[in-house]
Amino acid sequence: VRTTAVSGAATGKGNYRHFMEKELHEHPAVIGDTLRQYLDPRTLEVNLPRLPFDPVKVPRLTMTACGSAFLAAQVGRYWIEHLARIPVDADVASELRYRDPPLPEGGAAILVSQSGETADTMAALKLLREKGQSVLAVVNVPESSMARESDATVLTVAGPEIGVASTKAFTAQLSVLACLAIGLGRKRRELSTLDEGRLTKALLEVPHKAAEVLERDAEIHALASEVAKARDVLFLGRGSLFPIAMEGALKLKEISYIHAEGYAAGEMKHGPIALIDSQVPVIAICPSGPLYEKTLSNLQEASARGGRIMAFTDAAGAPSLERFAERVIVLPEIDPFAQPILYAIPVQLLAYHVAVLKGTDVDQPRNLAKSVTVE
Amino acid sequence: VRTTAVSGAATGKGNYRHFMEKELHEHPAVIGDTLRQYLDPRTLEVNLPRLPFDPVKVPRLTMTACGSAFLAAQVGRYWIEHLARIPVDADVASELRYRDPPLPEGGAAILVSQSGETADTMAALKLLREKGQSVLAVVNVPESSMARESDATVLTVAGPEIGVASTKAFTAQLSVLACLAIGLGRKRRELSTLDEGRLTKALLEVPHKAAEVLERDAEIHALASEVAKARDVLFLGRGSLFPIAMEGALKLKEISYIHAEGYAAGEMKHGPIALIDSQVPVIAICPSGPLYEKTLSNLQEASARGGRIMAFTDAAGAPSLERFAERVIVLPEIDPFAQPILYAIPVQLLAYHVAVLKGTDVDQPRNLAKSVTVE
Repeated sequence: VRTTAVSGAATGKGNYRHFMEKELHEHPAVIGDTLRQYLDPRTLEVNLPRLPFDPVKVPRLTMTACGSAFLAAQVGRYWIEHLARIPVDADVASELRYRDPPLPEGGAAILVSQSGETADTMAALKLLREKGQSVLAVVNVPESSMARESDATVLTVAGPEIGVASTKAFTAQLSVLACLAIGLGRKRRELSTLDEGRLTKALLEVPHKAAEVLERDAEIHALASEVAKARDVLFLGRGSLFPIAMEGALKLKEISYIHAEGYAAGEMKHGPIALIDSQVPVIAICPSGPLYEKTLSNLQEASARGGRIMAFTDAAGAPSLERFAERVIVLPEIDPFAQPILYAIPVQLLAYHVAVLKGTDVDQPRNLAKSVTVE
Repeated sequence: VRTTAVSGAATGKGNYRHFMEKELHEHPAVIGDTLRQYLDPRTLEVNLPRLPFDPVKVPRLTMTACGSAFLAAQVGRYWIEHLARIPVDADVASELRYRDPPLPEGGAAILVSQSGETADTMAALKLLREKGQSVLAVVNVPESSMARESDATVLTVAGPEIGVASTKAFTAQLSVLACLAIGLGRKRRELSTLDEGRLTKALLEVPHKAAEVLERDAEIHALASEVAKARDVLFLGRGSLFPIAMEGALKLKEISYIHAEGYAAGEMKHGPIALIDSQVPVIAICPSGPLYEKTLSNLQEASARGGRIMAFTDAAGAPSLERFAERVIVLPEIDPFAQPILYAIPVQLLAYHVAVLKGTDVDQPRNLAKSVTVE
């Protein structure tokens, strides 16, 4: 992990056309800076921050957030359940706060918010504390309301994010949650030091591989000129990449006003496959890994029904996809554990280029506020 | 609850143009027949079927399904958590089966499927049993694989459903899950007999109120002629009506090929609000009840940004909506507990009319199979 000076300081656009473009290019530094807080690159060990709950005894975790931060929480849920074997309930804050969930005694909650001021998440925080849950906040602003009112805070080191659509704050949230999942897994003895070493090594590869992803800019721009013609788009992924498909769709909605929807690839044939024709591109997050063959088979079905498949994959995943997909973008290989962080970048970059091509106000999209401080 | 002869027998279209239309008109009878199995109209008590788990001791429930049945499961989760205070995890079967969830000792699962043959749900069933979970199947076909391989089965009494897009099977699933939630609440002493009486009374009102909803056919047809012009639609709801917004969107996708998406109303401002313009109708499920004011306020925001609001509500909810909504369809009042069952009907009917107006193959929409028996 390299030491960088990106955090906190620069708020100008520099040589970039938009804050969003600048912030996209800060992914490698921000991920590195955030990982470096919790991960020792020499020992390959995670140093957990102070937690407001006992990782061994906690019966269940509640994760909540809004927008992109909720998608980060969904990846976090997947990682924590998988690596630490703690059951996790994830719900958007505006639903959680009104649904009166049965919360366990001694339970804890993890909240995620860039600003630390999101009204619905803040209201959920109060409710969860009233109901006796210990609350850990993952925020980017140390002096925010959530940081003050939580039992403990973990910081993302993303620096100021000006573009309304979150980019680097999202990968920083994922970086924190990945460390948290490994740390919890170790404390609960669900992970060996060997596993820990393999997973932390994968995380440490993300910053320079993120830089490689950003070098595919021209290819992603070419893909964007196809996507910009569409009015509707489907994003597909499975497992920990399903929330990344949702992130790609959310970003495209937010800044290009194209109606994109993210779907679990396996659910496609239970409805959305009816939408598929040559007008609706299907964008897949489909790198090699344990779920590759399953997603591939869903994409073949979509292709057989006239769907235009555009896939983000890696060298091992490319050959089978190239047989039927219209476009295949080959990204660096990385351990499946770290794929959600790496694959967030090309889908955000795609949304950025589509928005620029469509001439929308990229940094200040219509109807949206950076931090939603009303309900 | 009236005794009817609809179940099982008639498979012709009768005087209807499509099986789907016929099946929509069977809602009142099917809901009544299904409720009558578990609910005594004289004592207003729920008679729980044989369960494969102890309702008092079960630490957590896992609910899983695909497509519309998963949306019924999501409403079921809401009801069971609220009335019986059992934590429920709900996940689509294609995700659950590969995510290796941490399941509790002595835990149980509830699976929902019309056919009882859905491949992903069947695979989840096997996995859940292997992991020591007792499995209860809610199915419409008594001799199905799921009925055979589960520890216990609860039947929906929907009769044969021919239209590929599920209609009456969905409200029958909801009827079963509503009884289950009340019965579990009673066993766990979270509900008094007084509460039970109030809730069962509300359920018993659904069949004749469902018939009243079907009488609004002309009004819903008029709404459909507006919606049919759209290429993209947003459906909004909160709480137990959020899955009904999803059902409205899924049905519209499936049979009219309009790209409709369901959203939790409170999440709209965290992204999808950017989509809103005069081209994208916003259809809200917004009857009076504890979340009415919150949803209303989200709709006002959408309207202020040029969105065309079309709302399903009741007499108490109508006046405020009529101030800004383009169309307001007023449905019978019913206790908020039973609203998800009643409000499923107009959104399905809307999708039906839109599909007929667009001239699609209503009963056999492109790319879809009635029962997805492959992964």
